[in-house]
Amino acid sequence: MKGKRLLFLMLMMPMMAWAENVVSPNGNIVLTFSLTDNGRPTYEMTYKGRTVVKPSHLGLELAKDKHASKGMNETDLMDGFRVADVKYADFDETWKPVWGETATIRNHYNEMAVTLVQTKQGTEYHGDGTNRGLALVDHERRMIIRFRVYDDGIGFRYEFPQQKELNYFLIKEERTEFAMTGDHKAWWLPGDYDTQEQETQETKLSGIRERMNHAVNWSNSSVAPFSETGVQTSLQMKTDDGLYINIHEAACLDYATMHLELVDAKTKAFTTQLKGGSNAYTPHPQPSACPLPEPFTFVSHLTPDATGLKGAMQTPCETPWRTVMVSDDARDMLSSNLILNLNEPCKIEDTSWIHPTKYCGVWWEMIVGKSSWNYTDEFPSIKLDQIDWTKVKPNGRHAANNEKVKRYIDFAAKNGLDQVLVEGWNVGWEDWANMWKRDVFDFVTPYPDFDIKMLNDYAHSKGVKLLMHHETSSSTQNYERHLEQAFTLMNKYGYDAVKTGYVGDIIPRGDHHFSQSTNNHYMHVIKEAAKHHIMVNAHEAVRPTGICRTYPNMVGNESARGTEYEAFGGSRPDHTCILPFTRLQGGPMDYTPGIFVTRLSEWSGNQSWARITIAGSLALYLTMYSPLQMAADLPEHYERFDDAFQFIRDVACDWDDSRYLEAEPADYITVARKAKGTNNWFIGGKCDENGHKSVIKLDFLEKGKKYDCTIYADANDAHYEHNPQAYTITKRVVKKGDVLKLTEAPGGGFAVSLMMR
Amino acid sequence: MKGKRLLFLMLMMPMMAWAENVVSPNGNIVLTFSLTDNGRPTYEMTYKGRTVVKPSHLGLELAKDKHASKGMNETDLMDGFRVADVKYADFDETWKPVWGETATIRNHYNEMAVTLVQTKQGTEYHGDGTNRGLALVDHERRMIIRFRVYDDGIGFRYEFPQQKELNYFLIKEERTEFAMTGDHKAWWLPGDYDTQEQETQETKLSGIRERMNHAVNWSNSSVAPFSETGVQTSLQMKTDDGLYINIHEAACLDYATMHLELVDAKTKAFTTQLKGGSNAYTPHPQPSACPLPEPFTFVSHLTPDATGLKGAMQTPCETPWRTVMVSDDARDMLSSNLILNLNEPCKIEDTSWIHPTKYCGVWWEMIVGKSSWNYTDEFPSIKLDQIDWTKVKPNGRHAANNEKVKRYIDFAAKNGLDQVLVEGWNVGWEDWANMWKRDVFDFVTPYPDFDIKMLNDYAHSKGVKLLMHHETSSSTQNYERHLEQAFTLMNKYGYDAVKTGYVGDIIPRGDHHFSQSTNNHYMHVIKEAAKHHIMVNAHEAVRPTGICRTYPNMVGNESARGTEYEAFGGSRPDHTCILPFTRLQGGPMDYTPGIFVTRLSEWSGNQSWARITIAGSLALYLTMYSPLQMAADLPEHYERFDDAFQFIRDVACDWDDSRYLEAEPADYITVARKAKGTNNWFIGGKCDENGHKSVIKLDFLEKGKKYDCTIYADANDAHYEHNPQAYTITKRVVKKGDVLKLTEAPGGGFAVSLMMR
Repeated sequence: MKGKRLLFLMLMMPMMAWAENVVSPNGNIVLTFSLTDNGRPTYEMTYKGRTVVKPSHLGLELAKDKHASKGMNETDLMDGFRVADVKYADFDETWKPVWGETATIRNHYNEMAVTLVQTKQGTEYHGDGTNRGLALVDHERRMIIRFRVYDDGIGFRYEFPQQKELNYFLIKEERTEFAMTGDHKAWWLPGDYDTQEQETQETKLSGIRERMNHAVNWSNSSVAPFSETGVQTSLQMKTDDGLYINIHEAACLDYATMHLELVDAKTKAFTTQLKGGSNAYTPHPQPSACPLPEPFTFVSHLTPDATGLKGAMQTPCETPWRTVMVSDDARDMLSSNLILNLNEPCKIEDTSWIHPTKYCGVWWEMIVGKSSWNYTDEFPSIKLDQIDWTKVKPNGRHAANNEKVKRYIDFAAKNGLDQVLVEGWNVGWEDWANMWKRDVFDFVTPYPDFDIKMLNDYAHSKGVKLLMHHETSSSTQNYERHLEQAFTLMNKYGYDAVKTGYVGDIIPRGDHHFSQSTNNHYMHVIKEAAKHHIMVNAHEAVRPTGICRTYPNMVGNESARGTEYEAFGGSRPDHTCILPFTRLQGGPMDYTPGIFVTRLSEWSGNQSWARITIAGSLALYLTMYSPLQMAADLPEHYERFDDAFQFIRDVACDWDDSRYLEAEPADYITVARKAKGTNNWFIGGKCDENGHKSVIKLDFLEKGKKYDCTIYADANDAHYEHNPQAYTITKRVVKKGDVLKLTEAPGGGFAVSLMMR
Repeated sequence: MKGKRLLFLMLMMPMMAWAENVVSPNGNIVLTFSLTDNGRPTYEMTYKGRTVVKPSHLGLELAKDKHASKGMNETDLMDGFRVADVKYADFDETWKPVWGETATIRNHYNEMAVTLVQTKQGTEYHGDGTNRGLALVDHERRMIIRFRVYDDGIGFRYEFPQQKELNYFLIKEERTEFAMTGDHKAWWLPGDYDTQEQETQETKLSGIRERMNHAVNWSNSSVAPFSETGVQTSLQMKTDDGLYINIHEAACLDYATMHLELVDAKTKAFTTQLKGGSNAYTPHPQPSACPLPEPFTFVSHLTPDATGLKGAMQTPCETPWRTVMVSDDARDMLSSNLILNLNEPCKIEDTSWIHPTKYCGVWWEMIVGKSSWNYTDEFPSIKLDQIDWTKVKPNGRHAANNEKVKRYIDFAAKNGLDQVLVEGWNVGWEDWANMWKRDVFDFVTPYPDFDIKMLNDYAHSKGVKLLMHHETSSSTQNYERHLEQAFTLMNKYGYDAVKTGYVGDIIPRGDHHFSQSTNNHYMHVIKEAAKHHIMVNAHEAVRPTGICRTYPNMVGNESARGTEYEAFGGSRPDHTCILPFTRLQGGPMDYTPGIFVTRLSEWSGNQSWARITIAGSLALYLTMYSPLQMAADLPEHYERFDDAFQFIRDVACDWDDSRYLEAEPADYITVARKAKGTNNWFIGGKCDENGHKSVIKLDFLEKGKKYDCTIYADANDAHYEHNPQAYTITKRVVKKGDVLKLTEAPGGGFAVSLMMR
C-alpha cells in the first residue's frame, strides 16, 4: 500500500523539507518521515491518533580514521541530506517457524524506503587526454532508511548501498532518537557493555538517574555500565494513559548491541559519567549537527570495542532494525512476532536435526555450592598442557562423575526427559574465570572420573542424550581455536546440543560482551555449530534479537538473570512477570525453571531462597516460552513431589498455538498453548508478590470434544516465602466454553493440562 | 663452574646488599649481580676487563587490575627484594640443528640463578579452632633471575615459579636497563609497534633523537612509533675503542616484543612523545622505585595490547631472554649462536619433512606494479560470499594465471629450483589492506584462472612443488578461523610450505604486530602448521628470536626491509651489510635476493632501482644466510644472464660449516660455507657503496684435494648505479692455502663456488 503524502513536498528548493508517511495494515499506526531544514532525517509515530514517538532524529556519527585516505569516510551521516527517492511496498506472508509458539507466523507490514543523498563538493583530479587538472565535483553518499509498519509496531534500519564514496566507514556512535511523550513508567536494566543479569527496575523515566547506582549489578563477573541514564533494550514502558511501548532491536548480527541513553532534565552531554563505575568513560561533546534533544528522549548508545569505536562497516550493509512496539493491550506485547518477522528467513536448509528439548542436569548442586565443577584443589593455578590428570589429588566434591551422571541419565529416562546437561566434565575449572587466562579450556579433555564414551553409550541405551557444556570464560579467541575439534568430539559421541557460557571479561582484553566483534563471534559459533548439526544455547552471550528465525539451531540463550540467581541471593517474585515483556522479545530464554525446594538451606549451606511457589514454578514452563526447558532441581527433590512433577513430565515445549489470556508487566501473565501435533492444551499463570485471581474461559478448545483437565494450583495458604510447597492437584473433565477460576498465591501461579479424550 | 664471590656478602642484615658473579667459560666475560640498598636487582657486565654494561637495574612494573582481588597482584616486582638462594651451573653440549649454518652447534655457558624474595607484611584471616581473627603475616613473592654467560655474550631472564602469592599478574612495563658506557655508534631502527621495514640509521647514541622523525617509515602499511629515542632490537653498536655490542632477545614466544628506549641528555620521562606520530602515547611518570637512569642507558619498552597493557602472565612462567653479545672482532657477531642456544631444543619429533628450499615465484612483477594480485577492478569493494567469480570481468592484469604459473614451473624444473611461489592465487585481493575488513580472505578459493589441481599436478610431474601464499591482511582472527581448512587444502594438493603475510593494521583493532597476543598468534600458526607438516615463512610478522631451534618448520621470516623495497624507492647499498648483524641474529630472513635487472624502468613503469651489482646479488645467497632462498627476478632476466645465473643454480642453502672471513657493520661481509653433505664450498662477499678489496686464504679446504673454482666478480668498471650488470666469470683450479684477491665494486660483491674434483 502506498503511503499518502500528508504534509508538504516542496520540490526545486536547494534544501528540500520533506514529509512522507506510511500506515500500518489496520491503520492504527502512522509513521511519518521528514527532513529538517538542514537536511536531518526525522521520524515520528502515532498509535490510534496518539503520539508514541515525537519527532526524533536519525543518523550516525562517524569516526575519523588514519586510513581515511584509503577509503574510510569520516563525514557524519547525520545532516545535509536530501530525499532522492521514496519507495513503498506492502508485504503479507505467512511462514512456519522450525519451532515456536505458533505453527505459523504472519508477516504483514507496509514499507517505506527513503533514499537520502548527502552531497559534498570537493576537488578531484582528472587526467585523461589534453584536459588535465583539478575540477570541482560533487561527492555523493547514499543512505536508505527503511521503515516497516506493522499493526503492533514499527521497525526501521539504516542501509548503505555499495557506492563509490562510501565503501568503508567506522562508527563513532549511532544517533537514533526515540523521543517519548512524557515521564512514562519503565521496566529497565542498567545499560552495561558486559552484563544483562541485573534485577529489573521499575521507575518513572525521571527516576532512572537516581536509581542507577543501586541498579548496577556490581558483583557480576563482568560489569561495565556507561551512564547514569543508560538502559538496555528490550525496554518496556507504560504511559499514564495506558499505552504499552517497547523499544528493542531485531537482527543484530555483525553490529554492536544498542543501549538507550535517556536525556533527562539533568543531562548536560551524551554519556554522562557513572560514579563508582570501573570503566571511566568521559562525556564527549555533542556533534554540531546533533544538539542535545529534549528530556524524555532516548538516544542510541552502541557497545564499543577495545579502542572505543562502535563499528567497522563495509557497504553494502545495514544496521539492525530498531523497533518500537505499541498497544493499548499488554497482551499484544507478548504475542507480537514483530522482532522475528524483521529477521531473515531460515538460512539452514535441512532443519530436521533441530528439535525442542526437555532436560535435567548436573548443575544446580554446583550453583548452590554443594559440589564443584573443578576436580582438584591441589594447585593455586593450572596450565592445561602441564598436568597429568590421572595423578592429581581429587577434591572429592567433583559433581560430573560417572556415578552421578548415570543417576541423572536414569532419572531422565524414567521421566521422559530428552537430555542430561553435565557441567564441569572437562578439565580447566580449577582457575577458570577472570584471570585473563586465554588458554583456559580445551573443550575435549574429560576429567578422569568422567568416562565420556561410557556415559554417552549408557545414555543412548536408555533413549537419552547428554547435553554438552562449553564454558569459554569469555576467552573467545581460545574457543574459536578449539571450536572445530570440540564440535567434532560432540559428533563423535552423539551430542547434538551445547550450552555455551561467557562468564568474566572478554579476552582479548578491552573488548566487551556486546560489541560488534563479540556479536560476530556468537554468530560464528552458531554457524559453525549448524555445519555440525549442533544446537546452541548460549549463556552470558548477547541478548537475542530474533536471530533464531534465521538460525533456528540457536535454541536458547540466557542473557538475563536466570534461576541461578535464586542461589545468589534470589530475585524478586515479579521477575518472571517482567522477562516475557523484555528479555523474551528477542528469543527464548534458558531460564532453567522448576525449583521445588526453594529454601536451599534445607539441603545445603546456601542461605538463599527462591521467591516462588511450586505451582508458580510449574507455570514458568508455559509463561517463559522456550523450546529448551530444564527441570533444574535435583532428582530427589522431584521424587519428593512426584505428583507435581507429573506436570513437567507432561508439558510440551513446542506449540501449534498460543493465546495470551491475561497480562500486565510485573504483575501477572496467563497463557494457553496447544502442544505441537496434538489436541492437548496447557495453561500457565504466574503472578507477582501480590497474588492474582485468574478467570479463564476455555473458548479455544475444540467444539464437541472433552478434555481431561488437571489443575496444579497454589493451596489456599500457599505463599512464596512462608509456604511455597503448598499446592493442590485437581482433576476434572472440561469442554469448550467452560470457565476456570483460579487463585494464584503471592509469588505463585498455576499450571493446567488439558488432554483431549 | 661456580662463580666466585667477588665483592661482599653481608649476612644477617635486614636488607642485605649482595654481589655475586659468574664468568664465561673462557673467562673473558664477567657478569656481576647485586642488590641495591633498597633491594633493587642490578647487574653489570665486563669483557676482557672492559665494562660493557654499567650497573643496570632489573625489574617489572605491574598493572593494577580490577581483578586484583581474584589473584592479580599489582605490587611492582622492582625493589624490596632479598636474595634467598643462588644456584650455579655449567653446561656444555653440542646439538644438531635440522638446518643451519653449521652441522653442529656448541652450547657452552656458565649459569647463575638468583632467587629473589619480596616480602610484604599484610593481614590474613585465620579461623581454625578457638583462635579466630586477623593476624599479621608475611606475604612472600619469589622471582628468579637466571643469567647464562657465554664466551660471546650473556643472556638473562626473569622466571616466576608457581607460588601462592603470585599466580596471575599484568605487566605495565618491563624495566630492564642496559646502561652503556658512552656515546657509542649504533645501527638502529625506530622502535615501532607494527613495522620493522625501515632503513637502518647509523648515528651516535646521542644522535638518535634528532634523527628519529626522518627514520620512521611513515609510509608503511602499519606504523606506530612510540618515542623520540625508541629503537628496536637487535641493536648493533660499536664503541669508540672497538668493542662490538649487540642487544637483542631470545625465545620470545608468548610475551610482548621488547624495544629499547634510550635515556639521553634530553629525556625527562620514560616514553617521550614522538611528534607527528599517529599514535599519541602520553609519557607516564616514573614509578617511585624506578627513577630515570643516567644518559646512554637503554630501558626496555614492551609492545602493548589494545588496552595499553604489556602482558598477562600466569605462573609458572618466564620472560624471553635478554641478550647482550660482545666481542672485539665483528666476525664474532655473525658466527655467534647465542640466540639459538638460549632457545629450547626442537619440539617437533619427526622433522623429516622439513627441508631447505630454493624457489622462484610469481611475485616480482606484481611488486614492481606490472601485473596485479587481484583478478578484477569491477567493484569498489567486495564481500567474499557475495561474488560469483566466474561472472566478474577480469582486469587482464592478473598474474597468478595458469599460463604464467606453468611458465614458472617450467623454469624451476629446468634450473633445479625446488618450489614456485604464487601470490594472488586466491580470491579477496580486490580490497585487502587497511580497510578494517575482518573477513578479507578465505585461503581456499582460487581465482577462476588459477586451476589449483592442474597446476599442482603439473608441478609435481616435473619434480617441483608450488609454495602456498596466505596474506592475512593482519586480520589474525580471520586467519585463525580458516587455518585448519587452509592447511587441509595444502595437504590435499601437496603444498608443504606457506609464505604468510601481515600487511596493514592488526584486526582486532587496537592490537599491534608485536604484542603478546599477536606473538602468540604467530606461534599458534607455526604449531598448527607443524601438525600438517607445513613449513612457515612469515612476512611482516614479528622479528624472530631464535625460535627456529624449537620449531624448525619456521624456515624464514621477512621482519625487515626486504628486496620489495627495491621497487618502493630502493634501499641503501650498505643495507645488506647491516642486516646480518641485526635482523639475522634471531633467525633467517626471506630476503628474496637475485635482482639482475636493477633498473626497473627497463621493463616496467617503475622508476625505482636496486642499488646492487649482479655479482653483489649473487653474494647475498651466502652473506644473508637462509634455508629458504628465492631467485626473485623474472625468468627472462635470468635467461639473459644465464652464465651468472649458474651460480644460483649451483649454490646450496644448507651447510655443514660456515666461516666468517671478514666483517664490519655496514661496510663488508665475507663468508665461506661448506654445502651440506658435500665437499663443496661457496664463498660470498658483499660490500657497501665504497667497494672493498678482499683477500681470502683458502685454508678451510681439504688438504691434498683440488677444487674447480668459479669466481663471479664485479668487472673493473662495475658500479651499483652506473654499471651494475658488469661482471666477470673466471674459472681456475685451487687447493688449500691458495689465496684469492677479489675486488668488490661500489655496491657490489662476489660469489665463488669451489667444487671438489
